[in-house]
Amino acid sequence: MRIALDAMGGDHGPDEQIAGAIQALEESDLKLTLVGDEIAIQACLDRMAPADDVLSRLQVVHTSEMVEMGESPVDAIRKKKNSSVMLAFDLVKKGEADAAVSAGNSGATMAAAIRKLGRIENVSRPGIASAFPTLKKPVVMMDVGANVDCRPHHLFQFALMAAAFSRVFEIKSPRVGILSIGAETGKGNILVKETHTLLANSSLNFIGNVEGRDIFQGNVDVIVCDGFVGNVCLKVSEGLIEAATETLREGIMNSMKAKFGYFLAKPVFLKFKKRMDYAEYGGAPLLGINGTGIICHGKSNAVAIKNAILEAAKIVEIKVNEKIVASLAEHPEPLAEKK
Amino acid sequence: MRIALDAMGGDHGPDEQIAGAIQALEESDLKLTLVGDEIAIQACLDRMAPADDVLSRLQVVHTSEMVEMGESPVDAIRKKKNSSVMLAFDLVKKGEADAAVSAGNSGATMAAAIRKLGRIENVSRPGIASAFPTLKKPVVMMDVGANVDCRPHHLFQFALMAAAFSRVFEIKSPRVGILSIGAETGKGNILVKETHTLLANSSLNFIGNVEGRDIFQGNVDVIVCDGFVGNVCLKVSEGLIEAATETLREGIMNSMKAKFGYFLAKPVFLKFKKRMDYAEYGGAPLLGINGTGIICHGKSNAVAIKNAILEAAKIVEIKVNEKIVASLAEHPEPLAEKK
Repeated sequence: MRIALDAMGGDHGPDEQIAGAIQALEESDLKLTLVGDEIAIQACLDRMAPADDVLSRLQVVHTSEMVEMGESPVDAIRKKKNSSVMLAFDLVKKGEADAAVSAGNSGATMAAAIRKLGRIENVSRPGIASAFPTLKKPVVMMDVGANVDCRPHHLFQFALMAAAFSRVFEIKSPRVGILSIGAETGKGNILVKETHTLLANSSLNFIGNVEGRDIFQGNVDVIVCDGFVGNVCLKVSEGLIEAATETLREGIMNSMKAKFGYFLAKPVFLKFKKRMDYAEYGGAPLLGINGTGIICHGKSNAVAIKNAILEAAKIVEIKVNEKIVASLAEHPEPLAEKK
Repeated sequence: MRIALDAMGGDHGPDEQIAGAIQALEESDLKLTLVGDEIAIQACLDRMAPADDVLSRLQVVHTSEMVEMGESPVDAIRKKKNSSVMLAFDLVKKGEADAAVSAGNSGATMAAAIRKLGRIENVSRPGIASAFPTLKKPVVMMDVGANVDCRPHHLFQFALMAAAFSRVFEIKSPRVGILSIGAETGKGNILVKETHTLLANSSLNFIGNVEGRDIFQGNVDVIVCDGFVGNVCLKVSEGLIEAATETLREGIMNSMKAKFGYFLAKPVFLKFKKRMDYAEYGGAPLLGINGTGIICHGKSNAVAIKNAILEAAKIVEIKVNEKIVASLAEHPEPLAEKK
């Protein structure tokens, strides 16, 4: 299997991308195509000096064009036809790669994927799923940013697609919940109430409303919400962890005794950090497109890139898209509401 | 000044309410009316034995009726006309108290406040504000649960009301932001984009879109959002702090070395907990009603109740409602969009 990696994506430049690519090849028998500036990529490879076995499974597709983080996705896709992210998805389209991974501009990655690969038949809106760390298994949330104004049948399809994706975490009959503000049926806004009805009448293992606190408890496997709410949840979690870490760090640095105490308890903190770290969960898969694509956080480090590459391979391997097609075929009714 | 306290509210029964009431009287020269079951209240008072000076400023209004936590607010308000929360707001209506505080059923508290006190003229939708802990001053978020389906002019009014309330934290010209998923103007859902225009054309100190992570940074004073999104933020934060604490606790308890390290660093953790603790921020004020009311978390301990009582007094003292009236008068245009 071959994965295409946008080597120019992310806030850290090609270094983290290529370090992640090398780690992924060291841990698997995958093949990788790095898409980006040949000279910059070669300089990284020279510096990192991977083993011959790794090098033999790496190939480079050169382009000097790339989408900047702040750029308008629509403009970028229209004007930069040879950007690294466009070429990465072009490789998937031509069958020269099985999946594409990018830590670049999320909107442009989404747009490039749809432009190059199109949607799975009957999918109204492709979206972005994300795996949240919990006290037990990760929980898959969808949508986390692609679709900010949604109708009930969009959310219904997110449930089908996210449930198919959750198989990546060895979850057999995923418990599906809808994010609301109160556990009782009937709580929530109009969108939630209408989607609740669709989900309750489906063959999904629907457990009803879940609340923000349930995201981290691990008693639900798939949480459905619109892309606005999902993205807010993502950013609130990140912001809280950052603020909490900063507050603790400050307090610890201001006291010798606390500093020593922290030193003793450090393994516990590192384990905690690993558990809460988005990097451990790879990237966010684009679901509903006719192919496989993963969006990584702009801040992704090498570990996050490595995990995203391995995740992409897993999605292809367990045929998530075939499962989505089957699930859509099994639930044609809500599609009738599309108009 | 006299505050009415729903002595029967909250998950912990009257104990925490009355302990909080006593603390509030010890720290201020307020007067308090406890509304609830006389025998239960007296039993608490006998046990807690407050000083004579405190006792002399306490009075009890007896009722045996109370709203349960799971009860439908609409039914509760209709059927239980003598419930403790209804009588507490009745005291405010009759001018026998200046504000009411309840840690009971939030929906019923909101409904009782509106039923007894009515809305401030020209307010379309009263809502619930909440102060989030940040790295600097608290940030006021509104709405956090009362209005789940909103129109732009509702959010606009939330901004005016929350800005007036933020004076409680000695904030002079509050920076107002709208919660969105991207800092740039034009990012967000339809509701956010339309509200953005209203806010940008107002005399508020509007700083544009803010993101979930900004909630904890302290670089914005007032964050506006609909009650669905606001409530999700609240619950996500609570859930994450709970999950993080649980994960750390487990790790620490499993290692002698970490346990000793934690012991040394404990003051830092306690300070952190205090900073992140909702109890330190009192309750959530109901804004837009013709009077002053505070909803406390059902889990409120005595400290939270004490802080909510002091907060209610501060709201009355700095005349938040008069400021809301003035602010509404200054911004009549968006009201025209009400239809």
